Amino acid sequence: MTYCVGLYLRDGLVLLSDTRTNAGVDHVSCFGKMQVEEVPGERLLVLQTAGNLALTQAVWNRLQEGVRLDGRRQTLREVPNMFQAAQLVGQAVRDVYQADGPALSAQGVGFDLSLLLGGQIQGGPPRLYLVYAAGNFIEATPDTPFLQIGEVKYGKPILDRNVQFDTSLPDGVKLALISMDGTLRSNLTVGMPVDLLTYRTDSFAVALRRRLGEDDAYFRTIREGWAAALRRAYQDLPAPDWGRSGGSAP
Amino acid sequence: MTYCVGLYLRDGLVLLSDTRTNAGVDHVSCFGKMQVEEVPGERLLVLQTAGNLALTQAVWNRLQEGVRLDGRRQTLREVPNMFQAAQLVGQAVRDVYQADGPALSAQGVGFDLSLLLGGQIQGGPPRLYLVYAAGNFIEATPDTPFLQIGEVKYGKPILDRNVQFDTSLPDGVKLALISMDGTLRSNLTVGMPVDLLTYRTDSFAVALRRRLGEDDAYFRTIREGWAAALRRAYQDLPAPDWGRSGGSAP
Repeated sequence: MTYCVGLYLRDGLVLLSDTRTNAGVDHVSCFGKMQVEEVPGERLLVLQTAGNLALTQAVWNRLQEGVRLDGRRQTLREVPNMFQAAQLVGQAVRDVYQADGPALSAQGVGFDLSLLLGGQIQGGPPRLYLVYAAGNFIEATPDTPFLQIGEVKYGKPILDRNVQFDTSLPDGVKLALISMDGTLRSNLTVGMPVDLLTYRTDSFAVALRRRLGEDDAYFRTIREGWAAALRRAYQDLPAPDWGRSGGSAP
Repeated sequence: MTYCVGLYLRDGLVLLSDTRTNAGVDHVSCFGKMQVEEVPGERLLVLQTAGNLALTQAVWNRLQEGVRLDGRRQTLREVPNMFQAAQLVGQAVRDVYQADGPALSAQGVGFDLSLLLGGQIQGGPPRLYLVYAAGNFIEATPDTPFLQIGEVKYGKPILDRNVQFDTSLPDGVKLALISMDGTLRSNLTVGMPVDLLTYRTDSFAVALRRRLGEDDAYFRTIREGWAAALRRAYQDLPAPDWGRSGGSAP
């Protein structure tokens, strides 16, 4: 399994991916799931991937080689805007489906992958897309300023409650790490280290890119601080008082 | 969908179920998913159900009528101990499968249900079981003092972090309500009101049984207090400081 999350904020993007890949429970490896295309001062694009590793690697390799869209072969370094970048990723997914889908189907294996594409190209605003296995895609908006792929449920409530378009990048980093921490604790197939990238609107360059392992002091502070805060928070909530109002006590 | 959770604590049991049932998104109804068998002073058994409503109601009806186990028809009011109560529920599930499984299968509908059975019968300790669609079951232990059925993921991290066998009943109520609240927010097919029941070890009677709706003052206190505490908690965590240690700031 995998967990990747992208926050789409007024100030920029916060992108976080785990690195665990498994085929069964006894074949567990570490693979980066975050790929970056950067032309400093002109564009920054980040692709995060979840699903069958052979498929997601095939998509990335095709994007490196160039994918035929609108009659010509293009890469993410050439497309003129983010919408066409998302179309290009979708086309790469469809090309892989055409190449590998029938053989997978013959073995009873589903065509399982999804991707997050975030970034900005000169002339347009930052955008964040979720590309499905059918090659179609949705886009984050100020109303729904985050997208997730992979094992999305454990880490969703904290984002639902707190992520807004106006959330600052440092707060976004905290919330993404808290969301990842909850997922790491609840699903063994999501694993450390995690890859973090932040992007400031109109900078056209990576703001921060960092791999965080068990030994990262800040991630440890967040994990321990959050666990302690949750413990305090539920302990500080009042005990049920129905007993006093006529019912029986718990 | 459904969310039911049961906490198995030294002091007793905390059982919580939502009441929403849906067939598609335009056929949504309210059905209790918590059934109680009580012989005051002698036994208390509580069954919580998730999955296909026709199947879970069929299981409950068979349990009311009596299910043939070990050569004779028995109900939950007669079985001599909790282990045999779990066997009886499992047998009821298998009987329903035998009666309805082939017709469902012919329509391409899965045999989808699961149940929590908690309680205590004189002569034995309290026990909490999760019964699967195949009629087999697992039991909560002090190492893993909670079980969930239905839409389990959103509300699991808070339980993973905080529920221990020594957690008090009032704290257990708080944690179960927090777990339910996160699930209610993230999945529309889990809905209010919710049914809460608590049981004190060796009491052989319900301690508290209450249906909590939007207007319940205590549940509202928990929901609002928890949301505010989470907001404060992540805001109080330190901002990322990698920038100061040589990397770039987020």
